[in-house]
Amino acid sequence: MNLKNFITFEGGECSGKTTVIHSIKALFDELGIEYISTREPGGIKIAEQIRNIILDINNKEMTSETETLLYAAARMQHLSERVIPALNEGKIVLCDRFLDSSLAYQGYARGIGMDNVLKANSFALEKLPDLTIFIDVTPDVALKRLSGRDKQDRLDLEEMDFHKRVYDGYHKVMEMYPDRVVRIDGNQSLEEVTKDCINKVLEYLKLKV
Amino acid sequence: MNLKNFITFEGGECSGKTTVIHSIKALFDELGIEYISTREPGGIKIAEQIRNIILDINNKEMTSETETLLYAAARMQHLSERVIPALNEGKIVLCDRFLDSSLAYQGYARGIGMDNVLKANSFALEKLPDLTIFIDVTPDVALKRLSGRDKQDRLDLEEMDFHKRVYDGYHKVMEMYPDRVVRIDGNQSLEEVTKDCINKVLEYLKLKV
Repeated sequence: MNLKNFITFEGGECSGKTTVIHSIKALFDELGIEYISTREPGGIKIAEQIRNIILDINNKEMTSETETLLYAAARMQHLSERVIPALNEGKIVLCDRFLDSSLAYQGYARGIGMDNVLKANSFALEKLPDLTIFIDVTPDVALKRLSGRDKQDRLDLEEMDFHKRVYDGYHKVMEMYPDRVVRIDGNQSLEEVTKDCINKVLEYLKLKV
Repeated sequence: MNLKNFITFEGGECSGKTTVIHSIKALFDELGIEYISTREPGGIKIAEQIRNIILDINNKEMTSETETLLYAAARMQHLSERVIPALNEGKIVLCDRFLDSSLAYQGYARGIGMDNVLKANSFALEKLPDLTIFIDVTPDVALKRLSGRDKQDRLDLEEMDFHKRVYDGYHKVMEMYPDRVVRIDGNQSLEEVTKDCINKVLEYLKLKV
């Protein structure tokens, strides 16, 4: 059974992913559509343990290659324990970030190489998303939005150059997977972005509200 | 600088690897040859942390794919922190098991697929061993030796069939890397095995004792 119900959401900082997913969940609740909403490591014990190693600030010696493999391992476990079982139950899976994030952030922006990320994720390639909503925000707009945020984390402080590389990385991903990845103009207002995303998802699922 | 000094030792249970490596170390000490002797995870903190996740008996949900990726991650870290620096210092590196163990045990015997193990280990493929000593013990001889051991671990208790698959897996590895992997007849006495291994290593290093 392949219901083609695995939907991922991708985008750089301040793309509005969280709000969009929240709105889609609300709509699915209203329509009585069965779904789960998740993101790696998704509360999966083994994936959390792996994440803890990656995020441990004492692990400064960690190479980018090790990090890529650890992300791939956590992804695989999350996929096996959470995503695939839900798909097998006929549910729609909404996943905040997936392989494409590794491709854009680590493969391209951090310079590991997209090919190397793909090799490390060869198991996950057997269960690629059926639809990926890429919310495309240009780096200048993203940084304008970032400066308005109260809290800043490590990634927020990365310089403009890194944001540009992530942006370019996502555009490479779009070229790699033109059939799967749908681009939404993320420079619009959040209301418009949300509306466009909902329309794309409903169109994909052939539903009309 | 490529001194081609990365030497690994492979073989199934009761192949005599430990004794052989011990003898080579003693010889190297005698000859004043600079070397390190190691095995994954080799006391590397991050690799040990990864190993702990793999070996945690509570992690029953771990998929074979996740396990393969975690081994690859630990391998990469051990390689970067321990093996490559020693090679760069001009030392010979003696390593007890490496990628070929994953290929034989997980790829072949456990059924993950050699190709999948290779993909997960794509980073390590850039630093394959220069010489691999494969101590080839037939499963019947290995099991005869095993029954004489006091202590038995999980692997020792695996049935004959598994030992056969590991054996076949190593022979596939030999076919894949005929130039790198040298076969030693491990069914001989331990003294003869050790002598053959020492001769192969010295021949490779072009030394005469």
